[in-house]
Amino acid sequence: MKAVIYQGPHEFTVEERPKPCILEPTDAIVKVTHTTICGTDLHILQGDIASTPGCILGHEGVGVIDSVGIGVTNLQPGERVVIPAINGCGRCVYCRRGMASQCEVTGFAFGMVLDGMQAEYVRVPHAMFSLYVLPEEIDPGVGVLLSDVLPTAYEGSILNGGVGMGSSVVILGAGPVALAVLLLLKKLAGPSQVVVVGRGQSRLGVAKMLGADHVLTCLDGDAQVVKSAKALTGNRGFDVVIEAVGLTEVLETSQALVAAGGTIALLGAHMYKCDLHLESLWLRNITLKTLLVNTSSVPDLLRVVKAGKIHPEVLISHEYSFQDIEAAYEAFKTASKHGMLKVLITV
Amino acid sequence: MKAVIYQGPHEFTVEERPKPCILEPTDAIVKVTHTTICGTDLHILQGDIASTPGCILGHEGVGVIDSVGIGVTNLQPGERVVIPAINGCGRCVYCRRGMASQCEVTGFAFGMVLDGMQAEYVRVPHAMFSLYVLPEEIDPGVGVLLSDVLPTAYEGSILNGGVGMGSSVVILGAGPVALAVLLLLKKLAGPSQVVVVGRGQSRLGVAKMLGADHVLTCLDGDAQVVKSAKALTGNRGFDVVIEAVGLTEVLETSQALVAAGGTIALLGAHMYKCDLHLESLWLRNITLKTLLVNTSSVPDLLRVVKAGKIHPEVLISHEYSFQDIEAAYEAFKTASKHGMLKVLITV
Amino acid sequence: MKAVIYQGPHEFTVEERPKPCILEPTDAIVKVTHTTICGTDLHILQGDIASTPGCILGHEGVGVIDSVGIGVTNLQPGERVVIPAINGCGRCVYCRRGMASQCEVTGFAFGMVLDGMQAEYVRVPHAMFSLYVLPEEIDPGVGVLLSDVLPTAYEGSILNGGVGMGSSVVILGAGPVALAVLLLLKKLAGPSQVVVVGRGQSRLGVAKMLGADHVLTCLDGDAQVVKSAKALTGNRGFDVVIEAVGLTEVLETSQALVAAGGTIALLGAHMYKCDLHLESLWLRNITLKTLLVNTSSVPDLLRVVKAGKIHPEVLISHEYSFQDIEAAYEAFKTASKHGMLKVLITV
Amino acid sequence: MKAVIYQGPHEFTVEERPKPCILEPTDAIVKVTHTTICGTDLHILQGDIASTPGCILGHEGVGVIDSVGIGVTNLQPGERVVIPAINGCGRCVYCRRGMASQCEVTGFAFGMVLDGMQAEYVRVPHAMFSLYVLPEEIDPGVGVLLSDVLPTAYEGSILNGGVGMGSSVVILGAGPVALAVLLLLKKLAGPSQVVVVGRGQSRLGVAKMLGADHVLTCLDGDAQVVKSAKALTGNRGFDVVIEAVGLTEVLETSQALVAAGGTIALLGAHMYKCDLHLESLWLRNITLKTLLVNTSSVPDLLRVVKAGKIHPEVLISHEYSFQDIEAAYEAFKTASKHGMLKVLITV
Repeated sequence: MKAVIYQGPHEFTVEERPKPCILEPTDAIVKVTHTTICGTDLHILQGDIASTPGCILGHEGVGVIDSVGIGVTNLQPGERVVIPAINGCGRCVYCRRGMASQCEVTGFAFGMVLDGMQAEYVRVPHAMFSLYVLPEEIDPGVGVLLSDVLPTAYEGSILNGGVGMGSSVVILGAGPVALAVLLLLKKLAGPSQVVVVGRGQSRLGVAKMLGADHVLTCLDGDAQVVKSAKALTGNRGFDVVIEAVGLTEVLETSQALVAAGGTIALLGAHMYKCDLHLESLWLRNITLKTLLVNTSSVPDLLRVVKAGKIHPEVLISHEYSFQDIEAAYEAFKTASKHGMLKVLITV
Repeated sequence: MKAVIYQGPHEFTVEERPKPCILEPTDAIVKVTHTTICGTDLHILQGDIASTPGCILGHEGVGVIDSVGIGVTNLQPGERVVIPAINGCGRCVYCRRGMASQCEVTGFAFGMVLDGMQAEYVRVPHAMFSLYVLPEEIDPGVGVLLSDVLPTAYEGSILNGGVGMGSSVVILGAGPVALAVLLLLKKLAGPSQVVVVGRGQSRLGVAKMLGADHVLTCLDGDAQVVKSAKALTGNRGFDVVIEAVGLTEVLETSQALVAAGGTIALLGAHMYKCDLHLESLWLRNITLKTLLVNTSSVPDLLRVVKAGKIHPEVLISHEYSFQDIEAAYEAFKTASKHGMLKVLITV
Repeated sequence: MKAVIYQGPHEFTVEERPKPCILEPTDAIVKVTHTTICGTDLHILQGDIASTPGCILGHEGVGVIDSVGIGVTNLQPGERVVIPAINGCGRCVYCRRGMASQCEVTGFAFGMVLDGMQAEYVRVPHAMFSLYVLPEEIDPGVGVLLSDVLPTAYEGSILNGGVGMGSSVVILGAGPVALAVLLLLKKLAGPSQVVVVGRGQSRLGVAKMLGADHVLTCLDGDAQVVKSAKALTGNRGFDVVIEAVGLTEVLETSQALVAAGGTIALLGAHMYKCDLHLESLWLRNITLKTLLVNTSSVPDLLRVVKAGKIHPEVLISHEYSFQDIEAAYEAFKTASKHGMLKVLITV
Repeated sequence: MKAVIYQGPHEFTVEERPKPCILEPTDAIVKVTHTTICGTDLHILQGDIASTPGCILGHEGVGVIDSVGIGVTNLQPGERVVIPAINGCGRCVYCRRGMASQCEVTGFAFGMVLDGMQAEYVRVPHAMFSLYVLPEEIDPGVGVLLSDVLPTAYEGSILNGGVGMGSSVVILGAGPVALAVLLLLKKLAGPSQVVVVGRGQSRLGVAKMLGADHVLTCLDGDAQVVKSAKALTGNRGFDVVIEAVGLTEVLETSQALVAAGGTIALLGAHMYKCDLHLESLWLRNITLKTLLVNTSSVPDLLRVVKAGKIHPEVLISHEYSFQDIEAAYEAFKTASKHGMLKVLITV
């Protein structure tokens, strides 16, 4: 089968690999039908997040069950499934708490220590706990968003951010995850105000279309963004700040924008330490939360997507076939420049 | 001034009363500009809920500050305010917990032990804690809904019911509070499904218009309602059952419809004991909650209404002037028969 | 092997049965070393809770892994384990929420539809999710309490009851579960007051010894209990009422004792419907919760027991060997009469 | 009257001041009978926290109502009261949420912008909301601890830290607040393990006496503390890290000690920014919370203290009379050197 192989920093190849086979009785082999590329893949290629040379990349995918181990009693070959980005064992102390990202057995593994979904087939350990049947009402493209983008957006904003009725929210970033947050907040929560701060006009246009109450461009400079955004709250600051970029300077903006008693919810991967301004925050009763997605929200998301309550396909801007995945990677590296959001790759 | 006076069961009069005056330094006198009639007023007149002969009826209203006691430092004559149905002292153990309905000093008092808002003026004790300035962006008709209907709907469903992303919800009832629940759930929460069970076609039509996924008529009989409603959940039952009628038989339906692990949230006043079917519920991990509105959600509701996130004016079906309040009462007694929801009464 | 067999209402036999064997790859066979008898077993024998003639009774036990199916990758023969009363699949929507009692695959099954632990061996389905290694620091007798008594007590009181710092609590009942609640509340929570209402002086003596602030005897009559108990709260009622008896009249007492804004947490099995006094409770903002234990708290309980924070062995009043289990049943039927709490049965 | 006056950085005087009088109808004048000195007072004197030259210092105290404004209807002259460190208006959006520390009207004000309790009399604004009657069962020394130390400890650990049954906890610091945390956790919560890291042997001895499972001295160096403390958790780290020192290096230790999914709860005042190690924390799902005490927990604390559930008087190591307050300040500056915890000052 064809697969995208991590070769070490800055390098990947597309090459033939043997089709994976059942290694543990709890495994399933899934024929991947759709996958995508994530900012995390770029972080891996940049050497920011460690992977293993020779490992197949990709942690998002939809496919069809090819075969299951003898210990997998709830899935049948032929069933269409979502493969969550996180592979949880289901029984460790973290999985039992709904925090599979910290699974003591596997967890955040695909594309790094476990062959991933940018391939024709993938072996999925702990298949009973870590695969979800995709209802036929849901398009496979949307299914791919359920692997990572949508659960990250939901767990980061409504859960970790605690966005409730009447909350004021600022989303720092306008990439796919940031826009997914916006989509969910506008349809499934009750904020009184959602402000989006982004770079490119095209993404900010999507934000407007998705119902952002205000959009601000960070091209105006951080100081101006802080000033303009705070002005929209009567200078109180925001109850919830969603950091969906992953850059140190955005953390500075986050701290400047959070209201007393508010929450800074980090959704992005961070490569560097940052300054935490306790000299001003110690007495403001703020909460800061980091997130590696748990994908525990996939069942609930499946329900609202199936019921037609949200239409996340708007987050897919481009489609490629798997044979063109190198071109897709090339384009994705400069995604924000040309209005690219998520790319759907048909395998 | 003119006022609606409770004279004992089944009887009220509209007559002249002296304008109220400041009795405590923490009082405010509010010139009522708009009020309405509530199902609770009918309960009082039917003798179901105790009131005091001679007491002015009404616990919903919007008005303008006329004068304030010397201890009221945050309000000025001329300011337009919402008068919540619950009058909380702000400092007892219940008020500090956000449960002013159980205030140890006053609480659920207007129209029963405290002269209410169906009058040209009303004395509001604990004015600093129990009045909210109504922003000019909000129409006074909507302001009247903020006294009771909207906080009851919010506190009963999103808070007490715990409606979250993906929840399945059935609302039993299609009166103003039930429809307010529907309105809030569709705009400010993320249920995967909301079913409304009502009587009259006109109210069910409003439910459809407000986005109910399914409407069922209880005219088909309780057994049929249970069967049809459960079928909509694949026979699992509903995560959240909102009882917004206040009748014993509806409690039976509630218990038949709740899913294992689900919640029955009662919003209505109940006059009789009912059967609690512990023989089937003891092992289904259900929660049942009763509610007398606390009006603690008024500030958050003010924010979302002001921001235009919800448009509750749809709940006002008729308008009367205060001099016609007897006619309004007469019509409201059979409200469901002729498509009446809330009446706005201009004083 | 020897096993206790349910033969239909009012009848059980102790007889030879074949040793169970692995039926599913996810099964484990456990050699039972210790078990006990539960009030639920008596309910089954009384015909109150349905079981299957021919089924082995018992849902509490500690044992040693004998063998595991090929799909069980986390347990080894020879390891000592707690077998929780609830058998959860680990992957259904309820198990993922920590509510294995409502598991869509198995759940509340041992002793009713699944052969139980009053036998020399037991087959445990879903072994990876439904067995916990018992640390060597913990005595097997205490391990048996971790199957049901302690998780029921914890999930029913601290979780469902929401007992927090300063709460006033009344425990209705003085049986093993009720006393386990008392033990946990006094050691692991911060109530300001815990009152125990029981029947026999011997159990009330244990309650005193475990730190009950007050004990009351229900022999004085329900009206007197309500009067005396409420007086201990300045007539406010209790923030949390723990119903640990399972009788209709105790539900009446519960409703009479709950404070406004308080919670009635039911821990017992109930065979009959009861009256719910909505005519007085509708406006008091109370919560009522039913519980079939989820055993999701077993890992946390293992930690506090292992650390020596609680000493639940006080709940074991008698020991029998398995060959004397008929005598144990006989004695347990009138347990409260002769100061019996839990019996430890060594297999 | 005699009062301690802030004169600018590093300088205070004890001098005569006029007895305060009612300025607003919501004020009370309290005759201070007992006060104390807080680390915050030293921060003010060091110029770390801004105060106003001429302002009377002190934000902890117990006293007797001398007189009340006309708007204060719930307090009588002669009643003994606790004066919380935070002065909340009771009606702003923050006070209604239980977060009086961020009160929009006053808040964290005594000793900085509002004359404080190191004086014979103090004017307390918003007296109805911001004073609590001290039951006669509670010693005034303990009452003084209820102004700040105990609510800070409770709100910072059990509330913000989310310490639950089975949690592993490390307390960084062994000063009065840190020891109050230990006292509360051991008596009112159910951690499986509490480790205290402190400096002086005398304070660590008190920690041992109060039930710390392990004590470590930071004199061994931060690296050794991290290594030893983590070893006590099987190298998982702690579910809850309580930072009760307020130094940048302790923040480093906090981040090294927190388990995946855990919480860092800051209780101390911080004067400098610190490094937040997002490069390792971004994917560990941690929560960090800052706290300025809200004193919303005072009513619950009063209940458990009155009921004799905790005995916080152990935190008072020294007593002075008000005329010796300069000596008390002198001693308190080097408190940790000579085994001083809180000093009780009798006015």
